[in-house]
Amino acid sequence: MPEYWVSDINKAEEGVAQLEWAERNMPVLMSLRKKYSDEKPLRGAKIAACLHVTKETGVLVRTLKAWGAEVYLAASNPLSTQDDIAAALATEGVCVFAKKGESEKEYFWAIEKVASIHPDIVIDDGADLHSLLHEKHPEMLNKIKGGAEETTTGVVRLRALEKEKKLGYPVFAVNDAMTKQMFDNRYGTGQSTIDGLLRATNILISGKTIVVAGYGWVGRGIAARARGMGAEVIITEVDPVKALEAVMDGYRVMKMEEAAKIGDVFITATGDKDVITWKHMEKMKDGAILANSGHFNVEVSVKDLEENSISSRELRRYMKEYKMKNGKVLYLLAEGRLLNLVAAEGHPSEVMDMSFANQALIAKKVWTEPRLEPKVYKVPLDIDQNIAMLKLKSMGIEIDELTPEQKEYLDSWKLD
Amino acid sequence: MPEYWVSDINKAEEGVAQLEWAERNMPVLMSLRKKYSDEKPLRGAKIAACLHVTKETGVLVRTLKAWGAEVYLAASNPLSTQDDIAAALATEGVCVFAKKGESEKEYFWAIEKVASIHPDIVIDDGADLHSLLHEKHPEMLNKIKGGAEETTTGVVRLRALEKEKKLGYPVFAVNDAMTKQMFDNRYGTGQSTIDGLLRATNILISGKTIVVAGYGWVGRGIAARARGMGAEVIITEVDPVKALEAVMDGYRVMKMEEAAKIGDVFITATGDKDVITWKHMEKMKDGAILANSGHFNVEVSVKDLEENSISSRELRRYMKEYKMKNGKVLYLLAEGRLLNLVAAEGHPSEVMDMSFANQALIAKKVWTEPRLEPKVYKVPLDIDQNIAMLKLKSMGIEIDELTPEQKEYLDSWKLD
Amino acid sequence: MPEYWVSDINKAEEGVAQLEWAERNMPVLMSLRKKYSDEKPLRGAKIAACLHVTKETGVLVRTLKAWGAEVYLAASNPLSTQDDIAAALATEGVCVFAKKGESEKEYFWAIEKVASIHPDIVIDDGADLHSLLHEKHPEMLNKIKGGAEETTTGVVRLRALEKEKKLGYPVFAVNDAMTKQMFDNRYGTGQSTIDGLLRATNILISGKTIVVAGYGWVGRGIAARARGMGAEVIITEVDPVKALEAVMDGYRVMKMEEAAKIGDVFITATGDKDVITWKHMEKMKDGAILANSGHFNVEVSVKDLEENSISSRELRRYMKEYKMKNGKVLYLLAEGRLLNLVAAEGHPSEVMDMSFANQALIAKKVWTEPRLEPKVYKVPLDIDQNIAMLKLKSMGIEIDELTPEQKEYLDSWKLD
Amino acid sequence: MPEYWVSDINKAEEGVAQLEWAERNMPVLMSLRKKYSDEKPLRGAKIAACLHVTKETGVLVRTLKAWGAEVYLAASNPLSTQDDIAAALATEGVCVFAKKGESEKEYFWAIEKVASIHPDIVIDDGADLHSLLHEKHPEMLNKIKGGAEETTTGVVRLRALEKEKKLGYPVFAVNDAMTKQMFDNRYGTGQSTIDGLLRATNILISGKTIVVAGYGWVGRGIAARARGMGAEVIITEVDPVKALEAVMDGYRVMKMEEAAKIGDVFITATGDKDVITWKHMEKMKDGAILANSGHFNVEVSVKDLEENSISSRELRRYMKEYKMKNGKVLYLLAEGRLLNLVAAEGHPSEVMDMSFANQALIAKKVWTEPRLEPKVYKVPLDIDQNIAMLKLKSMGIEIDELTPEQKEYLDSWKLD
Repeated sequence: MPEYWVSDINKAEEGVAQLEWAERNMPVLMSLRKKYSDEKPLRGAKIAACLHVTKETGVLVRTLKAWGAEVYLAASNPLSTQDDIAAALATEGVCVFAKKGESEKEYFWAIEKVASIHPDIVIDDGADLHSLLHEKHPEMLNKIKGGAEETTTGVVRLRALEKEKKLGYPVFAVNDAMTKQMFDNRYGTGQSTIDGLLRATNILISGKTIVVAGYGWVGRGIAARARGMGAEVIITEVDPVKALEAVMDGYRVMKMEEAAKIGDVFITATGDKDVITWKHMEKMKDGAILANSGHFNVEVSVKDLEENSISSRELRRYMKEYKMKNGKVLYLLAEGRLLNLVAAEGHPSEVMDMSFANQALIAKKVWTEPRLEPKVYKVPLDIDQNIAMLKLKSMGIEIDELTPEQKEYLDSWKLD
Repeated sequence: MPEYWVSDINKAEEGVAQLEWAERNMPVLMSLRKKYSDEKPLRGAKIAACLHVTKETGVLVRTLKAWGAEVYLAASNPLSTQDDIAAALATEGVCVFAKKGESEKEYFWAIEKVASIHPDIVIDDGADLHSLLHEKHPEMLNKIKGGAEETTTGVVRLRALEKEKKLGYPVFAVNDAMTKQMFDNRYGTGQSTIDGLLRATNILISGKTIVVAGYGWVGRGIAARARGMGAEVIITEVDPVKALEAVMDGYRVMKMEEAAKIGDVFITATGDKDVITWKHMEKMKDGAILANSGHFNVEVSVKDLEENSISSRELRRYMKEYKMKNGKVLYLLAEGRLLNLVAAEGHPSEVMDMSFANQALIAKKVWTEPRLEPKVYKVPLDIDQNIAMLKLKSMGIEIDELTPEQKEYLDSWKLD
Repeated sequence: MPEYWVSDINKAEEGVAQLEWAERNMPVLMSLRKKYSDEKPLRGAKIAACLHVTKETGVLVRTLKAWGAEVYLAASNPLSTQDDIAAALATEGVCVFAKKGESEKEYFWAIEKVASIHPDIVIDDGADLHSLLHEKHPEMLNKIKGGAEETTTGVVRLRALEKEKKLGYPVFAVNDAMTKQMFDNRYGTGQSTIDGLLRATNILISGKTIVVAGYGWVGRGIAARARGMGAEVIITEVDPVKALEAVMDGYRVMKMEEAAKIGDVFITATGDKDVITWKHMEKMKDGAILANSGHFNVEVSVKDLEENSISSRELRRYMKEYKMKNGKVLYLLAEGRLLNLVAAEGHPSEVMDMSFANQALIAKKVWTEPRLEPKVYKVPLDIDQNIAMLKLKSMGIEIDELTPEQKEYLDSWKLD
Repeated sequence: MPEYWVSDINKAEEGVAQLEWAERNMPVLMSLRKKYSDEKPLRGAKIAACLHVTKETGVLVRTLKAWGAEVYLAASNPLSTQDDIAAALATEGVCVFAKKGESEKEYFWAIEKVASIHPDIVIDDGADLHSLLHEKHPEMLNKIKGGAEETTTGVVRLRALEKEKKLGYPVFAVNDAMTKQMFDNRYGTGQSTIDGLLRATNILISGKTIVVAGYGWVGRGIAARARGMGAEVIITEVDPVKALEAVMDGYRVMKMEEAAKIGDVFITATGDKDVITWKHMEKMKDGAILANSGHFNVEVSVKDLEENSISSRELRRYMKEYKMKNGKVLYLLAEGRLLNLVAAEGHPSEVMDMSFANQALIAKKVWTEPRLEPKVYKVPLDIDQNIAMLKLKSMGIEIDELTPEQKEYLDSWKLD
């Protein structure tokens, strides 16, 4: 039995049923698992992973194990752990350190725990594990053959590290793979944010004005789904090209200070901090709802809410009511943490299928190929296309192929 | 303390918080409650109600009480009761008989219980209470001053009764009010069905083929939201005009036998029975998901699922996995009962606000005006428009008014 | 050769090709034409028709002739005549009196011309012919066996006449048939209004704010298509229920006075007059575009434009530029007349297929059945459903049928 | 008076009015024109341009002239010239060689004409001018300081040239600028393709099945607008990632051979040849409509249509009817050339505003900065963002700016 730290090991059986359901909805990763399980391409690799401990992560971890790796897992968010999954993985021999609702101190203790194994491969979601290794364990960096990063936020942090010439091992920006970010960030977060909003509030979306901060992949996914559920959507942005795209997509675009006055619901998805502060809150309508779908709980200033309210209470699960000093009431969902992971179940298995197929194939690539320079790398195009093709196949979809004449035509430059 | 039968009276406090949240989202009913609470227009009336025992029903019941009525409440579905609400209402003096998960026997016992009070007014959702009164208590019919019916299904049943000249008291088809059916059936059920689907399965809707049976208000609400979440939607219908409308709205329309072969998810919303039977199930893809949003659990033939499967198990809450004798797996959600009420929280407060404002104003009308002939009546247009106007006002929306010249123009017939 | 008054009889050949194209796209009317052409159910009937002289009307007129009728045709709008069609019909023996761009005097002369034949059946679009018969030719009313009216506006006028007990013959409100109004008013006008807007202006719709006045079938068709082309859509309404529906559909709803300040394009579809007057125009942005898709050119006050401008010119075909006295420029499309008919080609054949199948079957019904009381009648449901079924068939679509058990279930009222 | 070759110089006045309308809708280019008209940054430059001779190109040419350049203009498509614009430009001193409907021989003669001026700067749309210069005038290449290319197709051809080390001067891929391709290719072609389809056929889009070949920016623009008009849309693709994106966006994806059987309308947008050949045509439904929105008329094989038909005729303007040897009828729009440019008016001014602002700023950059290596270059990010910001400003839209703290946060990598 491995070392582990979970809420209730007796929930393992429930977790196993969840894992089965996830495996059914992750045909790409399952076909890859099967394809390489004899070969065991990760034999001998120690993997430190900091990921949301969900059923989909469970399927990834099972795959890494089936390929021969030893896996150590910590949660990448104190609230996102599914305790039954943690229990199931523990009983299957994964060293998992994660409890839903763990304290901040416990959260970092768990990350330290998986960091301390002297890993060969590092898989992270948000770059807390990468950061900790660089800050606290410079001695381990040389041994690490490579890493991967799942989120936009994490890639931004790693690029900053690279720019300062402090990156200690090569990292693949799995986040930037087309089969990850176009699907996971857009379709996955789009749907699961709506899901989280409904579970936390049960409000009618139709007829509401929803303000989405940020029109990156995540923001546009949320905007599309909110509109698809009948909301009028307002976008705020700092990038003029993205702002213009939002306008052309039929959304209203304005400064947050203006949007603050008319929104019923606010959802941040920028990757930056202080997107909604007291400056905006004080202009909001009575009963406005605040939520975040960006990686860290810094986008909505909880501090400003606390400091400018006279009382607060948990009105529903994941919904806190603040009576503000200006007499109005504001609602904060999921403590300003990732709404989709805290109040709902995070991404559906189908999107994580592709993200984690990338993770698995990158781990395989890192372990079976020579160590690269310590830089941030893109996922190779052939991995992306392979995954997309496997996904289409799993859906029973066939697509056209270029004929040699068509290929030649595309390459030609002569006058027709 | 009134007589009551609830799961756990200690949940009352939780229920009260839920009621507060609902009241915030039901501005129309709240403004009406306030307007007539001094007048007490229902003083002396005994109301028998058979409704889903949700927080919104709680707000209606509180309103009826504030207007002077004595209220007896049973659940209109064995699975839809929110136990905390039942507890809260019981502590507030409502005779409530409802437990989530009550047996069929208990369900009818509870309806009998509220029927037996010799009511003045009967409010029903699905017409089980109306039917029981007609079948078992013909002696009470004369005393009943009037009733109301909330659902399409119920109105169909009452019209059949009326046609056979057996209707014993006047009933208002609240279901047919524009501010009820256009909003509740379409926007409410549309959203909450998606909500129920997500909570029960957490599948990615985007990229799925969802088959919606029936293109009435409920069906088109579900179809619009499913498309809005990224699904490809197929409609089945028996009415050629509705079928054509679905085609024009950009959906594929076909027979269920054809749709059975290609759907990933099937949702029935027809009000009829045996919409999906073994004839269809046997053609379905491995892993197809079956659900119902019509009033009764007769649309998907659970009997056919049971008889043609070799084993079954509860894989997730509200999701049962059937291994069929043809080797495929099918999933049934919420036992084929109303998906939105069983797996999610039913309609958002905002839509019930209007449905229940109709119920309250109809109860007031029934009690304060002379008894009508025993027929099925429409909700008067002025009630509908009044409610719509109050709703717009609560959203801060002002609309144009016709000038006298414009009114005259609309009434004119002369050559211009 | 019949009497006729057309622009250029030499355009007949062009018109014939257009008629062939229309017949290909009108499978319902063509199948009906064929079905009854031996029987000649309209033998002996003189039909006075006042319709937009388009290729689709040509297919109707050919059908009425194939069924044995004698047809006299005037235009229902001075600008909507397609001269090649008028020419083609004239050569085929129809007494047609219509020229694109005819004067108002000529317009009424032509209507008088077809009125003067002592018709048996009257088919009208807007009720100018019905009105003229009632005002100027009361002596003819008794002979008229029945009539039909194509538009909302016309039906409103006829209902006013009926209310005043002045209606002289039975009229069927073809406009109100489901296969007419749901398809023609919504899908037809929706698309062709966008088409007219593009042909008149070639502006990019995406990113524009388009204000639609009226959320009836026409207005919601325009709104849906404008949004589908990327616009942000604002609705103005006078009916609170419709206004609320627009809100729930995700549109912004406000008074025209507010919308005036922010719209880029304004399209009226109310059936009423003075929807946009100087009160609104003076608040509009420089360069705002005004158009109308309601039946008469009274919705945008052209008088107010003229009186408050210092100069004007035709900048593009169907687009007039007004320099207003407040220094801003406003653009009026199609002189404020029906944008879709003037600047584009009116409804696509596919929608007129159903409208005109109603017209043909109603003419047949009027002529072959006993004369009814002089009232406004609905199109019988079986005609509606027959047409919808023929349309589905022409698209290769099959739908489900109720089993006897399902029918019985729908009719039952007993406890399950 | 300059040398010119236009259809009718008397149309100049009409053209001038069109140019005024375009200038009103091109605020970005107009503000740039004004900003640099004193400075005259293109003084002394001879520009050879091969562009669609539309009103928007006219506004670009006027801007280049206002900045001091001498401009020689040929059409980039034999059918896309607006003769009134050609006339207007000729009277304003532009050497323009373009007539709508010019023969292929005339087309190349005109390109040769503008090539022969020994240009300093070359602006092209499709790379016919770039190709001709490389093939026929290698002696001129050294003098050319730089060029720009407007289309995807042209950039593909130039990249092929670059790969073979044969590119003779630096070229900026204006096509790849975000403010070009995301807006022009997607929103512009999307709308104008629908516009062309409507003008050519006047069919009802709602209820039709439209097959779009290619899911690049152009294809997804067309797909979004076709769906927005009520069509059911099917996508064909050769790239699995794009195919998967289409599935996730709710479209059906399949091979063209399958789509051929069910489509009502086919629109190609791939940039490749032989996308629709007899292999597909023979499976199509009677009455299927074929069109192309890719740059060259090679996507739909007109040869295959001709060879497999027994007769053909022009049924409507821009719509040719082919009776095929298998007994069915097929319709080809605009001879298989760019539907939006031939049958409609090409891109709306609003999108060309941004494309041509890029062209103007690139011409300025090429002329005022040192000659670059002969490579294919991206448009610099600051030009893109500047244009987007000017566009937002012209729409009255303000957006947020990052605070210094927010910038710092985005650049940080430390543990929070």
